[in-house]
Amino acid sequence: MNMKIKWLRDRLRTQNLQGMIVSNPVNVKYLTGIEAEGELLITLKENFFITDSRYVEAVNTILTIEDEILVNDKKNLTKDDYAAFFIFCENVGFEEYFVTYAEYKELLQKYRVNLMETEHIVEAQRVIKDEKEIQYIEKACEITDKCFEYLKSFIKIGMTEKEIAFEIEKFYKTNGADDVSFEPIVASGHNSSMPHAVPGTRKIKDGDLILIDMGCKYKGYCSDMTRMMFVNYMEDEYKEPYEICLRNNESAERELKDGKNMKVIAQNSNNDLKQNGYTPLHSLGHGVGLDIHEEPFFGIVYDQPLKENMVVTVEPGVYKSGQFGIRIEDTVLITKLGCQKLTRSPKEPTIIEG
Amino acid sequence: MNMKIKWLRDRLRTQNLQGMIVSNPVNVKYLTGIEAEGELLITLKENFFITDSRYVEAVNTILTIEDEILVNDKKNLTKDDYAAFFIFCENVGFEEYFVTYAEYKELLQKYRVNLMETEHIVEAQRVIKDEKEIQYIEKACEITDKCFEYLKSFIKIGMTEKEIAFEIEKFYKTNGADDVSFEPIVASGHNSSMPHAVPGTRKIKDGDLILIDMGCKYKGYCSDMTRMMFVNYMEDEYKEPYEICLRNNESAERELKDGKNMKVIAQNSNNDLKQNGYTPLHSLGHGVGLDIHEEPFFGIVYDQPLKENMVVTVEPGVYKSGQFGIRIEDTVLITKLGCQKLTRSPKEPTIIEG
Repeated sequence: MNMKIKWLRDRLRTQNLQGMIVSNPVNVKYLTGIEAEGELLITLKENFFITDSRYVEAVNTILTIEDEILVNDKKNLTKDDYAAFFIFCENVGFEEYFVTYAEYKELLQKYRVNLMETEHIVEAQRVIKDEKEIQYIEKACEITDKCFEYLKSFIKIGMTEKEIAFEIEKFYKTNGADDVSFEPIVASGHNSSMPHAVPGTRKIKDGDLILIDMGCKYKGYCSDMTRMMFVNYMEDEYKEPYEICLRNNESAERELKDGKNMKVIAQNSNNDLKQNGYTPLHSLGHGVGLDIHEEPFFGIVYDQPLKENMVVTVEPGVYKSGQFGIRIEDTVLITKLGCQKLTRSPKEPTIIEG
Repeated sequence: MNMKIKWLRDRLRTQNLQGMIVSNPVNVKYLTGIEAEGELLITLKENFFITDSRYVEAVNTILTIEDEILVNDKKNLTKDDYAAFFIFCENVGFEEYFVTYAEYKELLQKYRVNLMETEHIVEAQRVIKDEKEIQYIEKACEITDKCFEYLKSFIKIGMTEKEIAFEIEKFYKTNGADDVSFEPIVASGHNSSMPHAVPGTRKIKDGDLILIDMGCKYKGYCSDMTRMMFVNYMEDEYKEPYEICLRNNESAERELKDGKNMKVIAQNSNNDLKQNGYTPLHSLGHGVGLDIHEEPFFGIVYDQPLKENMVVTVEPGVYKSGQFGIRIEDTVLITKLGCQKLTRSPKEPTIIEG
């Protein structure tokens, strides 16, 4: 039995829904492993995947009998077939945050059923990772650690940020990752003061600090890590802010564990930054999984406890506008007693030989 | 006066719409040049762009007085402000193919106006390119021609398809393009028989044919070109299909001109392939602009004439399952008297020294 679908069915029951149409391909992959265009139909008894002839063979290869999913080629389906899928259902959920208005109207017409909003029901389920998902994220983090190690000897004075970002992509694609999980941020010198800097043509100089925020995907699951490098030596002006950022990161990570309130942890981190004279420019972190940013989110709105087997980032940053930015970020797994770091690159300042 | 917005207003009038909410960022960029998160509100008198504080400054830098667009930071807007934007409008259009069901409900609540479907109104406008748009596409095509020229000496026996695809991305990013317009297809030997092959770890061998389908973006506008390379020599088995494909490509390009029916051109190309013993596996081509695939599309459903200043691809392919695929593709501009090729790499077989 597919445990993810079983869990979803139980939730649907409590919401008085007898079925659901899953359209978001990330959610389809999460529930079934399927990576193909199509619609996943969940009912309390049977499940169907409606796709086209290009995918039927590949989808059937991925699915096992455990999944209890019948694959249908849409070219063989009549109007009556569509209306029959949910024939015993009064209310069927759909993904109102993913489906366009035009698609919603098409679903209504095709399945002839009462469609109900589901309020991120599958996204909420994705928050707690199972053993396999954790393994995949761990592997993505391991490749990211290796990439950081490689960059220490690769980066030299005179290279542009773009060239380094490009090398990161190349490392990932040739070292077992599916792809990057987001466009790498390589921000040197004063460019680092923008939290979402885009790598540009600035060339690395002696004494520079370089902020590197990067991650990859392994079997669809993401990693996310930020570290700082210093070229040949660490300027005095960076020493105190680095200490502040590192202490903040480590304090926050020490607070993480099952049951701890996320809002409180975020507030503690923000207060510490403010007490040290820095304005927090972004939230402390976010969930990581099939999406690089997914629930749960640290911040003053997310007044909820952490739970065992959530995977989140912890990424405080200290920024001085137009001068520098320092951010240290790990991807970590929440456990009963604390957290387990999945990115393990050293966090003391990394001095490289330019 | 912004001519694109003027044109759109005229169209809105004929559909009894007094305004429109443009949410698709590609359409916002098309109409205004703005590349920022936000909503563009068109009314018959004034236009507004609703964004957040991160973008206000950058957006105001792009806009000119000609655009007649007032930029609003949403944090300064009250509920009544939102309701006032369309106060003199009875019916306001929205993009039902882009906006999610949840967003649609939010728009309804925010603007308190009667929302009407617009059936790709802006996408239809984008079909005819203006002078500047043509210049940008021409530049993207020129960079693609240069990339092809570069690849002739770069590709060597023993390289993998992935390495070559990666080099294409690198060339684009370091030679004036914004980015690739799609992930390059590099398919060698029997891999070329799949029209949408993904570059893999197969290594280039002596006597291989290599299908390269690539394009880049320049100021947001795309190019698209496919050429074949042959390593050291051209196997006899490839000679006839290459001739068939090239003749088909050239015949189709000769047929293109303002007023010519797209369905007829597509049928002629398909019939020619069939007469030569090949099954057409994909359509003859598609529009190119801010999106790599956009209207108009060649094919049996698009029973409409070509028009001056459309930009389309012409890409017939001959495929022998599990053995080889040969495709030759140009991006071309439709003119009164014919078409003008925007990709200009030579189309005779390219023999490279491996």
